[in-house]
Formats: sequence, C-alpha cells, structure tokens
Amino acid sequence: MTKITKFKIGICQLKVTIEKNANISQARNLIHAAAEQGANLILLPEMWNCPYSADLFAEFAENLNDINSSPSSLMLSEVAYSLGVTIIGGSIPERDASSGRLYNTCCVFGSNGELKAKHRKIHLFDMGKPLPGDVHFKESDTFSAGEKPTVVETDFGCIGIGICHDLRFPELAILYRARGAHLICYPGAFNMSTGEALWELEQRTRAVDNQLYAATCSPCRDSAGSYMIWGHSTVVGPVCYRWVKLLEPQGTRKQF
Amino acid sequence: MTKITKFKIGICQLKVTIEKNANISQARNLIHAAAEQGANLILLPEMWNCPYSADLFAEFAENLNDINSSPSSLMLSEVAYSLGVTIIGGSIPERDASSGRLYNTCCVFGSNGELKAKHRKIHLFDMGKPLPGDVHFKESDTFSAGEKPTVVETDFGCIGIGICHDLRFPELAILYRARGAHLICYPGAFNMSTGEALWELEQRTRAVDNQLYAATCSPCRDSAGSYMIWGHSTVVGPVCYRWVKLLEPQGTRKQF
Repeated sequence: MTKITKFKIGICQLKVTIEKNANISQARNLIHAAAEQGANLILLPEMWNCPYSADLFAEFAENLNDINSSPSSLMLSEVAYSLGVTIIGGSIPERDASSGRLYNTCCVFGSNGELKAKHRKIHLFDMGKPLPGDVHFKESDTFSAGEKPTVVETDFGCIGIGICHDLRFPELAILYRARGAHLICYPGAFNMSTGEALWELEQRTRAVDNQLYAATCSPCRDSAGSYMIWGHSTVVGPVCYRWVKLLEPQGTRKQF
Repeated sequence: MTKITKFKIGICQLKVTIEKNANISQARNLIHAAAEQGANLILLPEMWNCPYSADLFAEFAENLNDINSSPSSLMLSEVAYSLGVTIIGGSIPERDASSGRLYNTCCVFGSNGELKAKHRKIHLFDMGKPLPGDVHFKESDTFSAGEKPTVVETDFGCIGIGICHDLRFPELAILYRARGAHLICYPGAFNMSTGEALWELEQRTRAVDNQLYAATCSPCRDSAGSYMIWGHSTVVGPVCYRWVKLLEPQGTRKQF
C-alpha cells in the first residue's frame, strides 16, 4: 500500500492540430507550464499527438516497443526526467511492431524518465447508430482492443488507467479499486452527444462508488472537425458532500 | 427471456404519517389512482407504512411469513388482485418470526395477488460521520442485513429489486443485468445531503451502464422530521441521448 502525500495534478487540455511536431511542441510547453505551477503529476488527453480521425491514426502511429523510435514518447520521457514529474501520457496511436496492429495507447513515465506502464484502450468506441448530425464512429475498423487492465504504482499512489470509452464500464473501475487504486486517470475525447449525456455523470459515479479520485483530460473542443470533442477535463473527489459544497458558492461545478 | 410489452408504471410518492392505518389507507388510494390512470406496474416508497425513524421500526414491524398477519401486505395483495396490477411494495419493517430480527423488506405481488418475491435490504445505511446539521443514522443498530439479491419475473419483464442504499453499489445492478433484469426498482429514502449529491447521479448511471430502466420511489419530502427525505421519485431510461433530449424543451430534467 503506497503512502500518499499531498500533490498537485496538472491537466493539459490542449488543442490538437494536423501537425504532429506542433502537437508535441505544444504538449511539451504545457507540461513545463504545469510543472512551473507546482504540478507533480501531469495528465495529457486522449490522442494528443493526432487529430481524432480514423484516416489519420495509421499515419500518426508510433512504435512504442522502442521509445527511441517514438518522438512523442521520447519527449514525454525527457520532460518527465528533466522536470522530475510523473506523466500519464494521454494516448497516441501505437503500431505494434510485430503484429502491425494499431492500438490507442497511453504511456506512463516516472520522474526518472522511465516508462512505467503502457495501457491499450480496452473498450473501443463502436457506435451502433449515428449521432445527431449523422456522425458515425467505429474505432474497431482501425484499432485493435487492449486486453489488460493497467494499474501503476507511482510516487502519488496507485493509479488505474482507462482511455475514453473505458470510462463507461463500471467493472474496470471496480477492478482498479480492488487492486488498490487511489486515482483513476481517464484521457478521453467524448463527443458533443456522449459528452453532454455521460462525461460528468460517469466520472462522478466512478469516484463516489469506488471512493477514489477520478481525473479526465480531453483535447480542447474544436468546431472544425466532424467529430466535435466535448472538452471539459475534470477532477472529481470521492466525498460526495464535498462535491455538493463546490456547487454552492459558485453556482456551477468546479471544472479544470 | 421475458417478452416485454409496452406498459405504464405508477410511482406512488406518498407522505408517511405516524398512523400506520392512515398510511395503509393512503397507499391503497394512490394505487387505485395509479391504476385508474392506466398503470400496470405500481411502485411504492421505502418505509411507506412507517416514519423513517429508528425508534419506530420495531413498533411498526410486521411478520411477512404469514401475510394474513401483516395488514400492510394483506392490503397490497388484495389491491393487486382486485385491480389486476403488479405491485413492487416499497418497503416496510419486517420482524422475522423465528429469529426475532428486524429487516427492511420489499414484497412484490403479482396481478393474481400472490406474493412473488421478498427482498430484504442488503446494504444498510450506516453513516461514518454526521451529516451537516448533525444528523446521524446507523441502520444496523436496528436492522439486520438481507443476504440475497432479488430478481423477479413479472408480466412486465424481469425486475431487480434494491432498497435505498442498495442503489449505491454498482455490483448489484451489474448482477441484476446479468440475471436478465430489464428494470431495477429502488424504493428509497435518501436524505437532503445524499439526495442532492447522489440520488439522480446513481440511478442515471445504473440505467445507462447496464442498459436497462431504473425506477425510484421515495416518500414525500417532510420538513417535520430530523431526517429530512429528499423525495424526487424518478424513472430513467437506458438511452443516454434520450435523456439529453428531455433536457432541451423544458430546461429541467423530467421527474415524476
């Protein structure tokens, strides 16, 4: 059981562009800015190096078996080490070197720059029906599904990792709690329909049902794409009364 | 697998008084009113025959092993038969004839008046800390906990039963879904703190996570007691987009 000390989490809700190098540079700048404000643990969004578009995932994918061949991971490892922070690296498209398959994958780096864990999104987002505005999405056309839950011991307690649609499954959060998680980090890119209906609902429930913290990090809302992302990165605590208290003075819920 | 036909559910949110006979009479009248409006399935609140107060449970308790000795159950059985409706009978304090123990128990009656199922509240509400206003509650001082989940086949599909705090546990809803439930009925009496923080949150999540309907029935809010009840009996569907749609025209959520 990890002894938990007080720490600050930095949530980097960034605007993803079509230029991978610009995305990497922006993420690096935001991680620096978060660390300068005292963040010890830093969370990036789902698909932070690549627009959320099925026709781009293969082009942006990197081989995560060898970090030196992955510019996105190399940057995360370097800044984790140079700033002495732990990074939950959102997700990027991964191409598995041996099978050639694509995965939606989160890498976790410790403050020594070491790759501590790799979580492949387990629950792919396959829509049964189009959303209002005729938006379709079927991740399994492009990605393969991860097969393992991921908990990782860090300087800030035991952290469970879920990516986006993984949030929708209470079993995963229950499992993480059983394995000792104090916090679940969910990089995610809900859309305008699932975002309004479920984003806040699900993370509040996971936190209170399992008596742990939940942190989500989304890319910024971007009105340019057909798949418009909800945004609203959030941190939720396990004490339901505290949540209610936050409602009172501000008339709105605290979101980061 | 039950074939489900369209049906109407009646939710009887009633004001519980200190007079048991008045409560029974009121419940009978509301069941009649619901049936007159076309309800086929009728749900009563938690503790509908007894104020929600630890010092009254023993006095109001009934023996449910023999329905003829239980005036509350006898009434439910009679109106279920005479009106041809299925009744999820909220809950009343039960005294087990052999052990002498008290339980918080829901009886389900079919449209032939038969007792189809009996659910004893599994998760008793023991508060670790007092609520704002110094309200304490520890159900296990008075009640014993039920040990079995309850699903019941009815004319309106397979229904899972949970009582109040049972709603807080995702495992129970997951189990009910695995056993074929289309609907979970939760008679409940959340208080003003847990009500604001969790009542809507939990039932919406149970419905959407398990892709089934959830119905809750609470006693009316009553400002006289120290344990003030939240009220807000609700029916929630599994389609998250439909919920959002309800938000739009009215600016407020649809509640019954």
